[in-house]
Amino acid sequence: MLETIFNHRSIRKYKSSPVSDEILDKVLQAGSRASTTGNMQVYSVIITKDEDLRKQLWEAHFKQDMVLQAPVHMTFCADFNRFTKWCKQRKSVPGYGNFLSFFTAAIDALLVSQNVALAAEAHGLGICYLGTATYMADRIVEILELPELVVPVTCIVMGYPDEQPGLTDRLPMNSIKHEEKYKEYLPEDIDMIYKEREESSLTKELLAINKKETLAQIFTDNRYTEKDNIYFSERFIDTIKKQGFFGNS
Amino acid sequence: MLETIFNHRSIRKYKSSPVSDEILDKVLQAGSRASTTGNMQVYSVIITKDEDLRKQLWEAHFKQDMVLQAPVHMTFCADFNRFTKWCKQRKSVPGYGNFLSFFTAAIDALLVSQNVALAAEAHGLGICYLGTATYMADRIVEILELPELVVPVTCIVMGYPDEQPGLTDRLPMNSIKHEEKYKEYLPEDIDMIYKEREESSLTKELLAINKKETLAQIFTDNRYTEKDNIYFSERFIDTIKKQGFFGNS
Repeated sequence: MLETIFNHRSIRKYKSSPVSDEILDKVLQAGSRASTTGNMQVYSVIITKDEDLRKQLWEAHFKQDMVLQAPVHMTFCADFNRFTKWCKQRKSVPGYGNFLSFFTAAIDALLVSQNVALAAEAHGLGICYLGTATYMADRIVEILELPELVVPVTCIVMGYPDEQPGLTDRLPMNSIKHEEKYKEYLPEDIDMIYKEREESSLTKELLAINKKETLAQIFTDNRYTEKDNIYFSERFIDTIKKQGFFGNS
Repeated sequence: MLETIFNHRSIRKYKSSPVSDEILDKVLQAGSRASTTGNMQVYSVIITKDEDLRKQLWEAHFKQDMVLQAPVHMTFCADFNRFTKWCKQRKSVPGYGNFLSFFTAAIDALLVSQNVALAAEAHGLGICYLGTATYMADRIVEILELPELVVPVTCIVMGYPDEQPGLTDRLPMNSIKHEEKYKEYLPEDIDMIYKEREESSLTKELLAINKKETLAQIFTDNRYTEKDNIYFSERFIDTIKKQGFFGNS
Protein backbone atom coordinates (compact mmCIF):
# COMPACT_ATOMS: atom_id res chain seq x y z
CA MET A 1 0.00 0.00 0.00
CA LEU A 2 2.47 2.57 1.20
CA GLU A 3 4.97 1.53 -1.45
CA THR A 4 2.44 2.26 -4.20
CA ILE A 5 1.64 5.66 -2.69
CA PHE A 6 5.30 6.62 -2.36
CA ASN A 7 6.13 5.42 -5.88
CA HIS A 8 3.47 7.48 -7.61
CA ARG A 9 4.60 9.62 -10.53
CA SER A 10 2.46 11.08 -13.30
CA ILE A 11 3.11 9.20 -16.55
CA ARG A 12 3.06 11.22 -19.77
CA LYS A 13 4.33 8.58 -22.23
CA TYR A 14 2.43 5.35 -22.81
CA LYS A 15 2.92 2.10 -24.67
CA SER A 16 0.24 1.27 -27.19
CA SER A 17 -0.59 -2.04 -25.44
CA PRO A 18 -4.25 -2.11 -24.41
CA VAL A 19 -5.45 -2.54 -20.82
CA SER A 20 -7.60 -5.62 -20.33
CA ASP A 21 -11.21 -5.29 -19.22
CA GLU A 22 -10.42 -7.62 -16.36
CA ILE A 23 -7.84 -5.22 -14.94
CA LEU A 24 -10.04 -2.21 -15.58
CA ASP A 25 -12.84 -3.89 -13.66
CA LYS A 26 -10.56 -4.63 -10.71
CA VAL A 27 -9.34 -1.07 -10.71
CA LEU A 28 -12.86 0.31 -10.79
CA GLN A 29 -13.95 -2.07 -8.08
CA ALA A 30 -11.17 -0.60 -5.93
CA GLY A 31 -12.57 2.83 -6.77
CA SER A 32 -15.99 1.86 -5.52
CA ARG A 33 -14.58 0.95 -2.08
CA ALA A 34 -13.81 4.60 -1.31
CA SER A 35 -15.91 6.34 1.33
CA THR A 36 -19.05 7.86 -0.15
CA THR A 37 -21.50 10.30 1.46
CA GLY A 38 -24.32 8.40 3.12
CA ASN A 39 -23.38 5.43 0.90
CA MET A 40 -25.22 7.21 -1.93
CA GLN A 41 -22.40 6.70 -4.45
CA VAL A 42 -23.26 9.92 -6.23
CA TYR A 43 -20.64 9.55 -8.95
CA SER A 44 -20.11 7.88 -12.30
CA VAL A 45 -16.97 6.78 -14.10
CA ILE A 46 -16.83 6.83 -17.87
CA ILE A 47 -14.20 4.63 -19.46
CA THR A 48 -13.40 5.72 -22.99
CA LYS A 49 -11.22 3.60 -25.27
CA ASP A 50 -12.71 4.41 -28.69
CA GLU A 51 -10.16 6.23 -30.85
CA ASP A 52 -12.50 8.78 -32.31
CA LEU A 53 -13.90 9.74 -28.92
CA ARG A 54 -10.42 9.90 -27.46
CA LYS A 55 -9.41 12.23 -30.26
CA GLN A 56 -12.27 14.54 -29.36
CA LEU A 57 -11.28 14.38 -25.70
CA TRP A 58 -7.67 15.08 -26.65
CA GLU A 59 -8.80 18.26 -28.41
CA ALA A 60 -10.76 19.25 -25.30
CA HIS A 61 -7.72 18.61 -23.08
CA PHE A 62 -5.62 21.23 -24.90
CA LYS A 63 -4.21 18.54 -27.25
CA GLN A 64 -1.81 17.07 -24.71
CA ASP A 65 0.00 14.19 -26.44
CA MET A 66 -0.53 11.70 -23.63
CA VAL A 67 -4.31 11.90 -24.04
CA LEU A 68 -4.04 10.52 -27.57
CA GLN A 69 -1.35 8.05 -26.61
CA ALA A 70 -2.85 6.42 -23.51
CA PRO A 71 -5.30 3.66 -24.45
CA VAL A 72 -7.73 4.49 -21.64
CA HIS A 73 -9.39 7.79 -20.69
CA MET A 74 -11.44 7.90 -17.50
CA THR A 75 -13.85 10.68 -16.59
CA PHE A 76 -14.95 10.98 -12.98
CA CYS A 77 -18.29 12.73 -12.64
CA ALA A 78 -20.30 14.18 -9.82
CA ASP A 79 -23.57 12.36 -10.54
CA PHE A 80 -26.92 12.97 -8.84
CA ASN A 81 -28.81 11.86 -11.96
CA ARG A 82 -29.00 8.16 -11.07
CA PHE A 83 -29.94 8.87 -7.45
CA THR A 84 -32.55 11.45 -8.46
CA LYS A 85 -34.13 9.08 -10.97
CA TRP A 86 -34.32 6.44 -8.25
CA CYS A 87 -36.02 8.85 -5.83
CA LYS A 88 -38.59 9.81 -8.46
CA GLN A 89 -39.35 6.13 -9.14
CA ARG A 90 -39.84 5.54 -5.41
CA LYS A 91 -42.49 8.09 -4.46
CA SER A 92 -39.97 10.51 -3.02
CA VAL A 93 -39.09 14.09 -3.90
CA PRO A 94 -35.35 14.59 -4.53
CA GLY A 95 -33.73 17.97 -3.86
CA TYR A 96 -30.22 17.72 -5.23
CA GLY A 97 -30.09 20.45 -7.88
CA ASN A 98 -27.98 22.72 -5.69
CA PHE A 99 -24.36 23.60 -5.02
CA LEU A 100 -23.96 21.60 -1.82
CA SER A 101 -25.12 18.44 -3.58
CA PHE A 102 -22.79 19.15 -6.48
CA PHE A 103 -19.85 19.51 -4.11
CA THR A 104 -20.83 16.41 -2.13
CA ALA A 105 -20.92 14.41 -5.35
CA ALA A 106 -17.61 15.95 -6.46
CA ILE A 107 -15.98 14.76 -3.21
CA ASP A 108 -17.36 11.26 -3.82
CA ALA A 109 -15.99 11.24 -7.39
CA LEU A 110 -12.56 12.53 -6.39
CA LEU A 111 -12.06 9.95 -3.65
CA VAL A 112 -12.98 7.25 -6.18
CA SER A 113 -10.47 8.68 -8.65
CA GLN A 114 -7.62 8.45 -6.17
CA ASN A 115 -8.45 4.84 -5.30
CA VAL A 116 -8.57 4.07 -9.03
CA ALA A 117 -5.22 5.79 -9.62
CA LEU A 118 -3.53 3.82 -6.83
CA ALA A 119 -5.13 0.51 -7.79
CA ALA A 120 -4.03 1.05 -11.41
CA GLU A 121 -0.48 1.67 -10.25
CA ALA A 122 -0.59 -1.43 -8.05
CA HIS A 123 -1.40 -3.33 -11.27
CA GLY A 124 1.63 -1.92 -13.07
CA LEU A 125 -0.26 0.76 -14.96
CA GLY A 126 0.63 4.43 -15.14
CA ILE A 127 -1.80 7.33 -14.83
CA CYS A 128 -1.91 11.08 -15.20
CA TYR A 129 -4.57 13.44 -13.87
CA LEU A 130 -5.82 16.03 -16.34
CA GLY A 131 -6.38 19.45 -14.81
CA THR A 132 -8.09 20.50 -18.02
CA ALA A 133 -11.18 18.50 -17.02
CA THR A 134 -12.67 21.46 -15.16
CA TYR A 135 -11.47 24.04 -17.70
CA MET A 136 -13.24 22.20 -20.49
CA ALA A 137 -16.09 20.61 -18.57
CA ASP A 138 -18.62 21.92 -21.11
CA ARG A 139 -16.90 20.15 -24.01
CA ILE A 140 -16.61 16.93 -22.02
CA VAL A 141 -20.34 17.15 -21.26
CA GLU A 142 -20.99 17.31 -25.01
CA ILE A 143 -18.53 14.61 -26.07
CA LEU A 144 -19.62 12.09 -23.45
CA GLU A 145 -23.30 13.13 -23.56
CA LEU A 146 -23.61 13.82 -19.84
CA PRO A 147 -27.20 14.46 -18.76
CA GLU A 148 -28.52 16.89 -16.16
CA LEU A 149 -27.03 16.55 -12.64
CA VAL A 150 -23.80 15.08 -14.05
CA VAL A 151 -20.61 17.18 -14.16
CA PRO A 152 -17.06 15.95 -14.86
CA VAL A 153 -14.72 16.89 -12.01
CA THR A 154 -11.52 15.17 -13.05
CA CYS A 155 -10.12 12.90 -15.74
CA ILE A 156 -7.19 10.54 -15.79
CA VAL A 157 -5.45 8.82 -18.67
CA MET A 158 -4.19 5.29 -18.09
CA GLY A 159 -1.96 2.75 -19.79
CA TYR A 160 1.35 0.93 -19.52
CA PRO A 161 4.16 3.44 -18.89
CA ASP A 162 6.70 4.09 -21.62
CA GLU A 163 8.88 6.27 -19.38
CA GLN A 164 10.36 6.12 -15.89
CA PRO A 165 10.35 9.68 -14.59
CA GLY A 166 11.92 10.54 -11.24
CA LEU A 167 9.86 11.48 -8.23
CA THR A 168 8.59 15.05 -8.31
CA ASP A 169 9.85 17.29 -5.52
CA ARG A 170 7.48 18.43 -2.82
CA LEU A 171 7.50 21.37 -0.42
CA PRO A 172 8.85 20.57 3.08
CA MET A 173 6.14 18.77 4.99
CA ASN A 174 5.94 21.39 7.72
CA SER A 175 4.78 23.89 5.13
CA ILE A 176 1.55 22.03 4.41
CA LYS A 177 0.98 20.80 7.96
CA HIS A 178 -0.60 22.93 10.69
CA GLU A 179 -0.76 21.84 14.30
CA GLU A 180 -4.03 22.41 16.16
CA LYS A 181 -5.00 25.56 14.19
CA TYR A 182 -3.91 27.27 10.99
CA LYS A 183 -0.57 28.96 11.44
CA GLU A 184 -0.31 32.00 9.18
CA TYR A 185 2.89 32.23 7.14
CA LEU A 186 5.40 34.98 7.85
CA PRO A 187 7.53 36.34 5.00
CA GLU A 188 10.51 34.34 6.30
CA ASP A 189 8.39 31.16 6.38
CA ILE A 190 7.56 31.65 2.71
CA ASP A 191 11.24 32.15 1.89
CA MET A 192 12.14 28.95 3.68
CA ILE A 193 9.31 26.89 2.19
CA TYR A 194 10.22 27.68 -1.41
CA LYS A 195 14.01 27.91 -0.98
CA GLU A 196 14.95 24.42 -2.14
CA ARG A 197 12.63 24.50 -5.13
CA GLU A 198 13.79 27.97 -6.14
CA GLU A 199 17.44 27.02 -5.94
CA SER A 200 17.07 23.78 -7.92
CA SER A 201 18.70 23.35 -11.30
CA LEU A 202 15.27 22.67 -12.81
CA THR A 203 14.10 26.12 -11.73
CA LYS A 204 17.22 27.75 -13.16
CA GLU A 205 16.53 26.02 -16.47
CA LEU A 206 12.90 27.12 -16.45
CA LEU A 207 13.84 30.72 -15.70
CA ALA A 208 16.25 30.75 -18.65
CA ILE A 209 13.75 29.15 -21.06
CA ASN A 210 10.88 31.41 -19.97
CA LYS A 211 13.02 34.52 -19.59
CA LYS A 212 11.60 35.26 -16.15
CA GLU A 213 13.15 36.62 -12.99
CA THR A 214 11.29 34.39 -10.51
CA LEU A 215 9.67 30.96 -10.56
CA ALA A 216 6.43 32.48 -9.29
CA GLN A 217 6.24 34.63 -12.43
CA ILE A 218 6.23 31.48 -14.57
CA PHE A 219 3.06 30.44 -12.75
CA THR A 220 1.30 33.79 -12.71
CA ASP A 221 2.35 34.99 -16.19
CA ASN A 222 2.44 31.73 -18.16
CA ARG A 223 0.90 28.66 -16.57
CA TYR A 224 -2.00 29.79 -14.41
CA THR A 225 -2.80 33.36 -15.33
CA GLU A 226 -5.50 35.49 -13.76
CA LYS A 227 -7.08 36.06 -17.17
CA ASP A 228 -7.40 32.31 -17.87
CA ASN A 229 -8.59 31.59 -14.35
CA ILE A 230 -11.37 34.14 -14.59
CA TYR A 231 -12.39 32.97 -18.06
CA PHE A 232 -12.48 29.29 -17.08
CA SER A 233 -14.17 30.06 -13.74
CA GLU A 234 -17.12 31.55 -15.58
CA ARG A 235 -17.18 28.69 -18.04
CA PHE A 236 -17.10 26.06 -15.28
CA ILE A 237 -19.79 27.81 -13.22
CA ASP A 238 -21.95 28.04 -16.36
CA THR A 239 -21.52 24.30 -16.90
CA ILE A 240 -22.45 23.46 -13.32
CA LYS A 241 -25.52 25.71 -13.70
CA LYS A 242 -26.44 24.26 -17.09
CA GLN A 243 -26.24 20.76 -15.62
CA GLY A 244 -28.81 21.85 -13.06
CA PHE A 245 -26.72 22.16 -9.92
CA PHE A 246 -27.14 25.85 -9.14
CA GLY A 247 -30.91 25.90 -8.96
CA ASN A 248 -33.00 26.20 -5.87
CA SER A 249 -33.71 22.52 -5.50
CA MET B 1 -2.09 -1.70 -1.55
CA LEU B 2 -5.18 -3.36 -2.94
CA GLU B 3 -5.80 -5.17 0.33
CA THR B 4 -5.92 -1.85 2.20
CA ILE B 5 -8.33 -0.40 -0.35
CA PHE B 6 -10.64 -3.41 -0.23
CA ASN B 7 -10.59 -3.53 3.56
CA HIS B 8 -11.67 0.05 4.08
CA ARG B 9 -14.58 0.65 6.40
CA SER B 10 -15.52 3.86 8.17
CA ILE B 11 -14.75 3.59 11.87
CA ARG B 12 -17.14 5.30 14.29
CA LYS B 13 -15.78 3.94 17.60
CA TYR B 14 -12.24 4.67 18.74
CA LYS B 15 -9.93 3.63 21.52
CA SER B 16 -8.57 6.46 23.59
CA SER B 17 -4.92 5.54 22.78
CA PRO B 18 -3.15 8.47 21.14
CA VAL B 19 -1.59 8.34 17.68
CA SER B 20 2.15 9.02 17.71
CA ASP B 21 3.55 12.02 15.86
CA GLU B 22 5.84 9.66 14.01
CA ILE B 23 2.92 7.78 12.47
CA LEU B 24 1.02 11.00 11.77
CA ASP B 25 4.05 12.33 9.92
CA LYS B 26 4.34 9.19 7.83
CA VAL B 27 0.66 9.35 7.02
CA LEU B 28 0.88 12.99 6.02
CA GLN B 29 3.99 12.31 3.95
CA ALA B 30 1.93 9.73 2.05
CA GLY B 31 -0.70 12.44 1.55
CA SER B 32 1.83 14.77 0.01
CA ARG B 33 2.72 12.20 -2.69
CA ALA B 34 -0.71 12.57 -4.31
CA SER B 35 -0.89 14.29 -7.69
CA THR B 36 -1.22 18.06 -7.35
CA THR B 37 -2.06 20.60 -10.03
CA GLY B 38 1.12 21.96 -11.59
CA ASN B 39 2.94 20.73 -8.47
CA MET B 40 1.59 23.83 -6.70
CA GLN B 41 0.36 21.88 -3.63
CA VAL B 42 -2.47 24.29 -3.07
CA TYR B 43 -3.75 22.62 0.08
CA SER B 44 -3.14 22.54 3.82
CA VAL B 45 -3.81 19.89 6.41
CA ILE B 46 -4.63 20.89 9.97
CA ILE B 47 -4.08 18.25 12.61
CA THR B 48 -6.06 18.94 15.75
CA LYS B 49 -5.52 16.93 18.93
CA ASP B 50 -6.28 19.54 21.59
CA GLU B 51 -9.35 18.55 23.58
CA ASP B 52 -10.94 21.95 23.76
CA LEU B 53 -10.56 22.53 20.04
CA ARG B 54 -11.86 19.05 19.29
CA LYS B 55 -14.88 19.79 21.42
CA GLN B 56 -15.59 22.90 19.36
CA LEU B 57 -15.16 20.89 16.18
CA TRP B 58 -17.46 18.20 17.56
CA GLU B 59 -20.14 20.83 18.04
CA ALA B 60 -19.63 22.00 14.47
CA HIS B 61 -19.91 18.44 13.16
CA PHE B 62 -23.45 18.03 14.50
CA LYS B 63 -22.09 16.52 17.74
CA GLN B 64 -21.29 13.13 16.26
CA ASP B 65 -19.82 10.99 19.08
CA MET B 66 -16.83 9.79 17.08
CA VAL B 67 -15.52 13.34 16.69
CA LEU B 68 -15.08 13.64 20.44
CA GLN B 69 -13.81 10.09 20.77
CA ALA B 70 -11.16 9.94 18.07
CA PRO B 71 -7.87 11.43 19.30
CA VAL B 72 -7.06 13.07 15.94
CA HIS B 73 -9.12 15.42 13.77
CA MET B 74 -7.75 16.37 10.36
CA THR B 75 -9.03 19.20 8.23
CA PHE B 76 -8.15 19.24 4.54
CA CYS B 77 -8.27 22.72 3.08
CA ALA B 78 -8.17 24.18 -0.39
CA ASP B 79 -5.34 26.67 0.19
CA PHE B 80 -4.17 29.37 -2.23
CA ASN B 81 -3.00 31.57 0.66
CA ARG B 82 0.54 30.18 0.88
CA PHE B 83 1.01 30.21 -2.91
CA THR B 84 -0.39 33.73 -3.22
CA LYS B 85 1.88 35.04 -0.49
CA TRP B 86 4.84 33.48 -2.30
CA CYS B 87 3.84 35.14 -5.59
CA LYS B 88 3.55 38.52 -3.90
CA GLN B 89 7.00 38.13 -2.34
CA ARG B 90 8.46 37.24 -5.75
CA LYS B 91 7.48 40.22 -7.92
CA SER B 92 4.56 38.42 -9.48
CA VAL B 93 0.83 39.14 -9.54
CA PRO B 94 -1.28 36.19 -8.36
CA GLY B 95 -4.83 35.73 -9.68
CA TYR B 96 -6.33 32.94 -7.63
CA GLY B 97 -9.31 34.54 -5.93
CA ASN B 98 -11.79 32.83 -8.25
CA PHE B 99 -13.95 29.72 -8.42
CA LEU B 100 -11.71 27.73 -10.76
CA SER B 101 -8.78 28.17 -8.41
CA PHE B 102 -10.92 27.18 -5.44
CA PHE B 103 -12.01 24.01 -7.21
CA THR B 104 -8.46 23.22 -8.35
CA ALA B 105 -7.27 23.53 -4.75
CA ALA B 106 -10.22 21.45 -3.54
CA ILE B 107 -9.22 18.63 -5.91
CA ASP B 108 -5.67 18.81 -4.58
CA ALA B 109 -6.88 18.63 -0.97
CA LEU B 110 -9.27 15.74 -1.62
CA LEU B 111 -6.64 13.58 -3.33
CA VAL B 112 -4.36 14.20 -0.35
CA SER B 113 -7.15 13.19 2.03
CA GLN B 114 -7.64 9.85 0.31
CA ASN B 115 -3.92 9.06 0.40
CA VAL B 116 -3.91 9.99 4.09
CA ALA B 117 -6.94 7.78 4.76
CA LEU B 118 -5.35 4.77 3.06
CA ALA B 119 -1.93 5.32 4.62
CA ALA B 120 -3.55 5.58 8.05
CA GLU B 121 -5.37 2.30 7.48
CA ALA B 122 -2.14 0.67 6.31
CA HIS B 123 -0.72 1.68 9.72
CA GLY B 124 -3.57 -0.03 11.58
CA LEU B 125 -5.53 3.16 12.21
CA GLY B 126 -9.20 3.71 11.47
CA ILE B 127 -10.72 6.80 9.88
CA CYS B 128 -14.09 8.33 9.10
CA TYR B 129 -14.82 11.13 6.65
CA LEU B 130 -17.08 13.88 7.97
CA GLY B 131 -19.59 15.13 5.42
CA THR B 132 -20.45 17.94 7.81
CA ALA B 133 -17.19 19.71 6.86
CA THR B 134 -18.85 21.54 3.95
CA TYR B 135 -22.12 22.10 5.81
CA MET B 136 -20.29 23.85 8.63
CA ALA B 137 -17.32 25.28 6.75
CA ASP B 138 -17.93 28.73 8.24
CA ARG B 139 -17.63 27.41 11.80
CA ILE B 140 -14.50 25.45 10.95
CA VAL B 141 -13.00 28.63 9.46
CA GLU B 142 -13.61 30.35 12.80
CA ILE B 143 -12.43 27.52 15.05
CA LEU B 144 -9.23 26.84 13.13
CA GLU B 145 -8.64 30.50 12.21
CA LEU B 146 -8.41 29.95 8.47
CA PRO B 147 -7.28 33.05 6.59
CA GLU B 148 -8.40 34.32 3.19
CA LEU B 149 -8.04 31.84 0.28
CA VAL B 150 -8.33 28.87 2.63
CA VAL B 151 -11.55 26.80 2.76
CA PRO B 152 -12.08 23.42 4.45
CA VAL B 153 -13.32 20.84 1.95
CA THR B 154 -13.32 17.69 4.03
CA CYS B 155 -12.39 16.42 7.49
CA ILE B 156 -11.54 13.01 8.80
CA VAL B 157 -11.27 11.69 12.31
CA MET B 158 -8.55 9.16 13.05
CA GLY B 159 -7.53 6.79 15.80
CA TYR B 160 -7.24 3.14 16.74
CA PRO B 161 -10.51 1.32 15.96
CA ASP B 162 -12.68 0.06 18.81
CA GLU B 163 -15.07 -1.76 16.50
CA GLN B 164 -14.87 -4.12 13.55
CA PRO B 165 -17.79 -3.25 11.30
CA GLY B 166 -18.54 -5.34 8.22
CA LEU B 167 -17.97 -4.04 4.71
CA THR B 168 -20.66 -1.66 3.51
CA ASP B 169 -22.63 -2.81 0.49
CA ARG B 170 -22.13 -1.08 -2.85
CA LEU B 171 -24.29 -0.78 -5.95
CA PRO B 172 -23.47 -3.28 -8.72
CA MET B 173 -20.36 -2.06 -10.52
CA ASN B 174 -22.10 -1.74 -13.87
CA SER B 175 -24.33 0.93 -12.41
CA ILE B 176 -21.48 3.35 -11.81
CA LYS B 177 -19.45 2.40 -14.90
CA HIS B 178 -20.19 3.76 -18.36
CA GLU B 179 -18.45 2.45 -21.46
CA GLU B 180 -17.25 5.02 -24.00
CA LYS B 181 -20.03 7.57 -23.26
CA TYR B 182 -22.62 8.13 -20.56
CA LYS B 183 -25.42 5.61 -20.84
CA GLU B 184 -28.67 7.11 -19.56
CA TYR B 185 -30.59 4.95 -17.09
CA LEU B 186 -33.95 3.47 -18.08
CA PRO B 187 -36.58 2.88 -15.39
CA GLU B 188 -35.79 -0.85 -15.45
CA ASP B 189 -32.06 -0.09 -15.00
CA ILE B 190 -32.86 1.89 -11.88
CA ASP B 191 -34.99 -0.97 -10.53
CA MET B 192 -32.15 -3.43 -11.12
CA ILE B 193 -29.44 -1.18 -9.66
CA TYR B 194 -31.21 -0.66 -6.34
CA LYS B 195 -32.91 -4.09 -6.10
CA GLU B 196 -30.43 -5.81 -3.80
CA ARG B 197 -30.11 -2.83 -1.48
CA GLU B 198 -33.88 -2.34 -1.31
CA GLU B 199 -34.50 -5.99 -0.51
CA SER B 200 -31.85 -6.21 2.22
CA SER B 201 -32.78 -6.81 5.82
CA LEU B 202 -31.03 -3.56 6.77
CA THR B 203 -33.41 -1.64 4.52
CA LYS B 204 -36.43 -3.41 6.00
CA GLU B 205 -35.23 -2.45 9.46
CA LEU B 206 -34.72 1.18 8.41
CA LEU B 207 -38.17 1.38 6.86
CA ALA B 208 -39.74 0.11 10.06
CA ILE B 209 -37.74 2.47 12.29
CA ASN B 210 -38.36 5.50 10.07
CA LYS B 211 -41.94 4.57 9.22
CA LYS B 212 -41.36 5.09 5.50
CA GLU B 213 -42.62 3.26 2.46
CA THR B 214 -39.39 3.41 0.42
CA LEU B 215 -35.68 3.66 1.16
CA ALA B 216 -35.44 6.71 -1.09
CA GLN B 217 -37.86 8.55 1.19
CA ILE B 218 -35.47 8.08 4.11
CA PHE B 219 -32.88 10.00 2.10
CA THR B 220 -35.13 12.75 0.74
CA ASP B 221 -37.31 13.22 3.85
CA ASN B 222 -34.82 12.57 6.67
CA ARG B 223 -31.14 12.41 5.79
CA TYR B 224 -30.52 14.76 2.87
CA THR B 225 -33.54 16.99 2.53
CA GLU B 226 -34.03 19.68 -0.10
CA LYS B 227 -34.51 22.28 2.63
CA ASP B 228 -31.20 21.44 4.33
CA ASN B 229 -29.38 21.23 1.01
CA ILE B 230 -30.54 24.68 -0.05
CA TYR B 231 -29.75 26.17 3.34
CA PHE B 232 -26.25 24.66 3.50
CA SER B 233 -25.58 25.47 -0.18
CA GLU B 234 -26.03 29.14 0.54
CA ARG B 235 -23.95 28.91 3.67
CA PHE B 236 -21.12 27.11 1.87
CA ILE B 237 -21.16 29.51 -1.09
CA ASP B 238 -21.07 32.44 1.35
CA THR B 239 -18.04 30.90 3.04
CA ILE B 240 -16.21 30.39 -0.25
CA LYS B 241 -17.00 34.02 -1.13
CA LYS B 242 -16.00 35.32 2.29
CA GLN B 243 -12.68 33.50 1.99
CA GLY B 244 -12.09 35.42 -1.26
CA PHE B 245 -12.61 32.72 -3.88
CA PHE B 246 -15.56 34.18 -5.76
CA GLY B 247 -14.02 37.50 -6.66
CA ASN B 248 -12.86 38.56 -10.08
CA SER B 249 -9.23 37.76 -9.54
